[in-house]
Amino acid sequence: MQREMLMNVEEFQRALAESNLDAVVAVSQPNVFYTSGALIPTQKEIPDRLVQTVLPKDGDDVLLTCAIEERFARAETWIEDVRSYPEFAQSPIYLLASVLKEKGLAEGRVGIEKKYLTGAYYEELVSLLPRARFEACDDLFGEVRSVKTPGEIKRFQQAALATERAMMEAFHEAKIGQTEKELLDCILLKLTAYGADDIRLGVLAAGDQSLHAHPKARDRELQAGDLVRADIGGVFNGYGSDVARTAVVGKATQDQKATYSKHREVQRGAIQYMQPGVLACDVFQYCVQAYRKLGIDYSAPHVGHGFGLGGHEVPMLQPHDARELRPNMLICVEPVILDKDLGGYQLEDLVLIKEDGAEILTTYSDTEELCVIEG
Amino acid sequence: MQREMLMNVEEFQRALAESNLDAVVAVSQPNVFYTSGALIPTQKEIPDRLVQTVLPKDGDDVLLTCAIEERFARAETWIEDVRSYPEFAQSPIYLLASVLKEKGLAEGRVGIEKKYLTGAYYEELVSLLPRARFEACDDLFGEVRSVKTPGEIKRFQQAALATERAMMEAFHEAKIGQTEKELLDCILLKLTAYGADDIRLGVLAAGDQSLHAHPKARDRELQAGDLVRADIGGVFNGYGSDVARTAVVGKATQDQKATYSKHREVQRGAIQYMQPGVLACDVFQYCVQAYRKLGIDYSAPHVGHGFGLGGHEVPMLQPHDARELRPNMLICVEPVILDKDLGGYQLEDLVLIKEDGAEILTTYSDTEELCVIEG
Repeated sequence: MQREMLMNVEEFQRALAESNLDAVVAVSQPNVFYTSGALIPTQKEIPDRLVQTVLPKDGDDVLLTCAIEERFARAETWIEDVRSYPEFAQSPIYLLASVLKEKGLAEGRVGIEKKYLTGAYYEELVSLLPRARFEACDDLFGEVRSVKTPGEIKRFQQAALATERAMMEAFHEAKIGQTEKELLDCILLKLTAYGADDIRLGVLAAGDQSLHAHPKARDRELQAGDLVRADIGGVFNGYGSDVARTAVVGKATQDQKATYSKHREVQRGAIQYMQPGVLACDVFQYCVQAYRKLGIDYSAPHVGHGFGLGGHEVPMLQPHDARELRPNMLICVEPVILDKDLGGYQLEDLVLIKEDGAEILTTYSDTEELCVIEG
Repeated sequence: MQREMLMNVEEFQRALAESNLDAVVAVSQPNVFYTSGALIPTQKEIPDRLVQTVLPKDGDDVLLTCAIEERFARAETWIEDVRSYPEFAQSPIYLLASVLKEKGLAEGRVGIEKKYLTGAYYEELVSLLPRARFEACDDLFGEVRSVKTPGEIKRFQQAALATERAMMEAFHEAKIGQTEKELLDCILLKLTAYGADDIRLGVLAAGDQSLHAHPKARDRELQAGDLVRADIGGVFNGYGSDVARTAVVGKATQDQKATYSKHREVQRGAIQYMQPGVLACDVFQYCVQAYRKLGIDYSAPHVGHGFGLGGHEVPMLQPHDARELRPNMLICVEPVILDKDLGGYQLEDLVLIKEDGAEILTTYSDTEELCVIEG
């Protein structure tokens, strides 16, 4: 069944049962898609047009959408009870409050996404149900979604491989004299050709801009000696990607080769270090120390992140996240060098945590040597 | 100067002066881009990584960003005072509170985007500055941004024309037997080729799905007689588009021709009706009545919307928006027929409100006849 393939139903039900909540409400696109199977394109672009799922501990789930999307939502979701509000005439929060009342939750403990629901909607909800107790359930969703189903792993790997392929093919076809923007467009065109229906992230950082984390590609021509860092993400039927590769234009200098080689050594070492039970923050510290041994000060705030429907997800490979890695987590491992003397180097791979270690899923290209744009 | 070209500075300063606020804080991507010139790609994809502008009534503006984006933000913005917070180690709201204190606003009246700032961040801000008075300033930004500068009009028109071109070329190249998804991909490829670095909306609704507002294109083959409705938006250097066209596969029946013709008559009538001083809600009522005269019940919640950096913007052509149209507003006019007997028809044009009426900016194609996919 589609629901079990794409949603970790067992984990969700356990988390809800173990919480002190009577129900949780999903309101962000990732959580609504995850809990209903309905991906409503306008949910992200028109933030006022809320789509929500109400997931009671006891009783049936309800999907709430605006009337104009109701027909499509019904066709997409596995939830049987779909309700809608007429946009502009009725607030989506009014409908939510009515459904919560109907479910006997007017005085219940209700989990809401405090990190997504806006202050205005939150105040409206509290004023409509003053005796309910609203608690943040962002972490509950985050933890459940961090462990992927086989259906999710397959979809995220396909998205990542298509992205890696788009990038590497564009690097191989690129020419000296082509502009940064032209090279980026070539990557994005291929990404779309390989099935992306949306672009999450299109970063091409070249030359002096390779030091910026996420600059905008310019009309500047690629020059021999340029470092070119691409950090690209597409969305394929709702499932995103996030892959980065670095290349050099013309011929790599000995210094560039050496820095890339050190950089890759740290990234591969981190992946080797990752297995169930290892703490996210310890992977960060592993990288900081490994770079230090190689004479490099690490400056970025993280070295990678859980990846899923919401993009950056827990666990975050950052110094303050003490979560344990668990089997079937998907992690983007991306330590990055952004150093004004060395330049910008990034290698971001999608990694699956398995019982006995970590497996790299982005295997389209051989990353052992610094990629060269021969042009 | 770039700021004056892309931001209605005069209108903003007047609005702030006339408000009872001591400062406003922008936190959504559209408002931060608008008030700083800095478009930070990760701001949208990583919602925790806040980028903010503090705009005091007296004193200099400040741009707040996470440390990893600081270098790029400095290169992009016209704001001189740029501050950053180390991600994970310090909350972006802590930095905001510090800057507000420094500006003498710890007990001031501060406008915040209550319709964007999350409940969690809002609570944090209130707890850090308990004596400040926070008020929603979403409408202030909305009103200011609704009147476009010449630089904005040029950029939005270019984006819209490229989008219209992508769609029409794809329709002309389409073949019977091609799948819905293949036709949509063709549009999106062209959109990217014509300069889009992001896709806002990629809707292709065909056959029985033409009734759904925003369905997902399927692997179903296009068949003679299908209505095909495309509603497409790209983002070109931060400036988006939103254009829709309808076609029929093979040959249009008399009924299809007649319905399209009625639909276009209403849309063109509405545009003719639009001029400075006309109320947004009256444009909606105009359409409802015009359809009624033609024997069609109107079912969608609006007939169009202001268009700008945030996509759907005020004024909304819906029954409850009593805003007046003003010169230099950009409006997407898109009454839509979604009728189970008639099918789905949509024609969405970008329209500029001028002193003496409304001008259609999406003039790439002649929309007088229902477009035919001859295949």
